[in-house]
Amino acid sequence: MHFRSKQKIRFGDIDRAGIVYYPRFLHYFHVALEEFFDDSLCVSYPTVINHHNIGLPTVHLETDFQGPLRYGDKIEVEVRVLSLGKSSIRFGYRVFRQGEDTPRVTGHNITVCVDMDTFEKKPIPDFLRECLVTHLD
Amino acid sequence: MHFRSKQKIRFGDIDRAGIVYYPRFLHYFHVALEEFFDDSLCVSYPTVINHHNIGLPTVHLETDFQGPLRYGDKIEVEVRVLSLGKSSIRFGYRVFRQGEDTPRVTGHNITVCVDMDTFEKKPIPDFLRECLVTHLD
Amino acid sequence: MHFRSKQKIRFGDIDRAGIVYYPRFLHYFHVALEEFFDDSLCVSYPTVINHHNIGLPTVHLETDFQGPLRYGDKIEVEVRVLSLGKSSIRFGYRVFRQGEDTPRVTGHNITVCVDMDTFEKKPIPDFLRECLVTHLD
Amino acid sequence: MHFRSKQKIRFGDIDRAGIVYYPRFLHYFHVALEEFFDDSLCVSYPTVINHHNIGLPTVHLETDFQGPLRYGDKIEVEVRVLSLGKSSIRFGYRVFRQGEDTPRVTGHNITVCVDMDTFEKKPIPDFLRECLVTHLD
Repeated sequence: MHFRSKQKIRFGDIDRAGIVYYPRFLHYFHVALEEFFDDSLCVSYPTVINHHNIGLPTVHLETDFQGPLRYGDKIEVEVRVLSLGKSSIRFGYRVFRQGEDTPRVTGHNITVCVDMDTFEKKPIPDFLRECLVTHLD
Repeated sequence: MHFRSKQKIRFGDIDRAGIVYYPRFLHYFHVALEEFFDDSLCVSYPTVINHHNIGLPTVHLETDFQGPLRYGDKIEVEVRVLSLGKSSIRFGYRVFRQGEDTPRVTGHNITVCVDMDTFEKKPIPDFLRECLVTHLD
Repeated sequence: MHFRSKQKIRFGDIDRAGIVYYPRFLHYFHVALEEFFDDSLCVSYPTVINHHNIGLPTVHLETDFQGPLRYGDKIEVEVRVLSLGKSSIRFGYRVFRQGEDTPRVTGHNITVCVDMDTFEKKPIPDFLRECLVTHLD
Repeated sequence: MHFRSKQKIRFGDIDRAGIVYYPRFLHYFHVALEEFFDDSLCVSYPTVINHHNIGLPTVHLETDFQGPLRYGDKIEVEVRVLSLGKSSIRFGYRVFRQGEDTPRVTGHNITVCVDMDTFEKKPIPDFLRECLVTHLD
């Protein structure tokens, strides 16, 4: 069973069409990623950036939206570690409406490990690689 | 020359890493799309939804982030009509920092024409297809 | 003890000054209000609007920001029912950094009960008044 | 005539009630403030923070919402300098729907000048005071 972040569709997440404004799903992905670090990894996301001075900017993103979500919906955002490169990590996401087996939204993003001072790419440090590798799909 | 929407990176668009929070770029894309309708098409985006009762929800999204943007940067978001299906439209986007020739962010999304009452897919109505086809790449 | 909504400062909530972008606190207030309904009232906020067709738009807002909050901070947002008029409700909010006794942000807003179809002011319906009155300060 | 920032209500600014999500107005205020600096002052807001290392966090906010705004509305956000203290500035805002004389939203906030490294309050520097004083109401 992969990690799932429980979230609620908020009043202000809705657009003029009465469904979740689609850029908002990428925020849900990021919140789920932060929760995955908090819950399942050896280090929190704030600690990675605040103390280890490492950033993980996204360089690529793909998302499919199979069905709309509306105000009042409760969701679970699954996070998986799909692959690990020397400097890059590919995370996968699936958004389920609570109680459903078919995801409403699926996606993945590739993040690259950078030094926060220079924004230069650097290898994923060992402490972080060791955390992530145990969750590799 | 394709349509470009001039935008500014705002104080609140920045994340903890000091760069634009990446979900925000999808908002920039949407603002640019709204401006493209206002500027270049025969009908505004609010009119499409408010008066024609048509929605254009995104079903697929791909984006590449080649370089970060920071507070104070001015950008131009290019919008192109990449292809037209029976019910679907594929829009392409490129984000340029003002004065630069290489985009910082590129992407495209596929939207599907739906009836706003039922959210059922429907063919792109003729008035909208005629507007869009003149801008087809 | 008043209701408190536990929230986390998110990566994208930060502005160029490295602190929470102040409009974001009003979003925290709203999320806390939604949680207060879910947790403590006889009816959820989505049910109020989706099923009873009642809106509660804000007509007045006052907020004091006593201290900044940063990425990684965990907060508790207290919600109180300060007063009930014929059509209006005044809610109070205090934002505490976890473990602290002095709030970082305090505020209140006045909302007015409206019919969602007409946006006309209407008396707070009895079922909602009865829920709220038991929480009156 | 005071400075006015022209803005449009965006597709994603709308909440479940079909009107502008009220925290969004504080974002409109901030965008208008950034535009006021760009247009009317001797220094841009990014320059104040990026080069002079000065922040202007909000310590107090009051807002009245007299009427809703909807998708497709075009607005003008007026900015005024209401008063100048040793370290503090009080800005006033009024949001007009284009073509209307009665504002839909009015408000003011008090910001305090701080050193960005320490977040300690400091006197408004002379170069900034001289810019602001010419716009004092």
